Amino acid sequence: MVKQDRALRTRQAILSAAAEVFEERGYQMATISKILTTAGVTKGALYFHFPSKEHLAQGVLHEQDQLLPVPSRSYKIQELVDTVMLHAYRLQTEPMVRAGVRLSLDQQAHGLDRSGPFAHWTEVVGVLLDEALARRELLPHVVSSEAASVLVGAFAGVQAMSQAVSDYKDLLARVSSLLAYVLPSVAVPSVLAAVDLTQDRGETIAAELRQGAGVLDLAVG
Amino acid sequence: MVKQDRALRTRQAILSAAAEVFEERGYQMATISKILTTAGVTKGALYFHFPSKEHLAQGVLHEQDQLLPVPSRSYKIQELVDTVMLHAYRLQTEPMVRAGVRLSLDQQAHGLDRSGPFAHWTEVVGVLLDEALARRELLPHVVSSEAASVLVGAFAGVQAMSQAVSDYKDLLARVSSLLAYVLPSVAVPSVLAAVDLTQDRGETIAAELRQGAGVLDLAVG
Repeated sequence: MVKQDRALRTRQAILSAAAEVFEERGYQMATISKILTTAGVTKGALYFHFPSKEHLAQGVLHEQDQLLPVPSRSYKIQELVDTVMLHAYRLQTEPMVRAGVRLSLDQQAHGLDRSGPFAHWTEVVGVLLDEALARRELLPHVVSSEAASVLVGAFAGVQAMSQAVSDYKDLLARVSSLLAYVLPSVAVPSVLAAVDLTQDRGETIAAELRQGAGVLDLAVG
Repeated sequence: MVKQDRALRTRQAILSAAAEVFEERGYQMATISKILTTAGVTKGALYFHFPSKEHLAQGVLHEQDQLLPVPSRSYKIQELVDTVMLHAYRLQTEPMVRAGVRLSLDQQAHGLDRSGPFAHWTEVVGVLLDEALARRELLPHVVSSEAASVLVGAFAGVQAMSQAVSDYKDLLARVSSLLAYVLPSVAVPSVLAAVDLTQDRGETIAAELRQGAGVLDLAVG
């Protein structure tokens, strides 16, 4: 058990170092030797967990998919909003999430399949929309997979724009704004009227989760 | 006059080469010497037009801002759709536009101000929305600058997602989809019902412009 804990900590240390190096240099310029120095682990340990740079990158990409399940709400659309706003908040506050998002938009990452996070998030949002549909929260004729694609693609751009123009300072306002413009094409008016999509929503959920699950789960992110 | 033409052609050749090199290597790894070889011009000519790598990048970034004014329509919202769909079509078909868009999302371009194209497009879309507002095509309470920001940010992400998952093959369908989800929060229903936002719209406008203005204008892009 102690051994397993240590292996997990080593893996996490390597991933954190990889995230740092990928964010600083981009995929192309990142080197395993730089990640080694940053992580302060042995070559053997690194290759045991991640046999190649691509494996390291997929590990970082995958970290943003470690979904924190948001608390249940009366409306599934609120859970969707909470999931999106929490992701935006984590992007702003957690280096690992930020590195994953940025890596998935790294156009110079030749040979790295970056479609995973897009597919994953489209699936996550699609499932929430399907549940909302079953509860009659969606407008008729909404195709949940299409709406999910639009939301996920749009989110990626809104965060990129926020990074380019304000270094993420205006991220939460922009994401809240995006939801305010897209959701009226998705949810029925009565649900929409009841949903809270103000920009401090993400921080509220994060605090709620921290209280519920202990500080550890969020701190390792 | 002939001299000016030649200078313009040289400038364009340098920009095309820069676009190619930036797209292949990203901003960080691109070198002036590689751009020189690709362009096949003298060092003096290059430095005359662009004194530094950053000037070259700004030149490429700026090229996507060379707005092709779309033909006038009965509804300003249709002109907005046409502007967006034409940009998507050009992104798919013109290397220079693609290089500009990609450069504006190049997170490793340390020291390069990438906010220009975002600000420019937000302005362009904002002006069209203001005109639409004056003609009562917008829903009450729409803040045109906010709607413009959402559209521009969302567009950036939708194109990045399209690149990551399909190498731009599904770009036009995705952009058309984005407009279908955002515009109902922007335009009044009667205008919305009259607007054509099918995915072949961009190609139609491009053909229209080519017929109107001669082939040259589009071919240099």
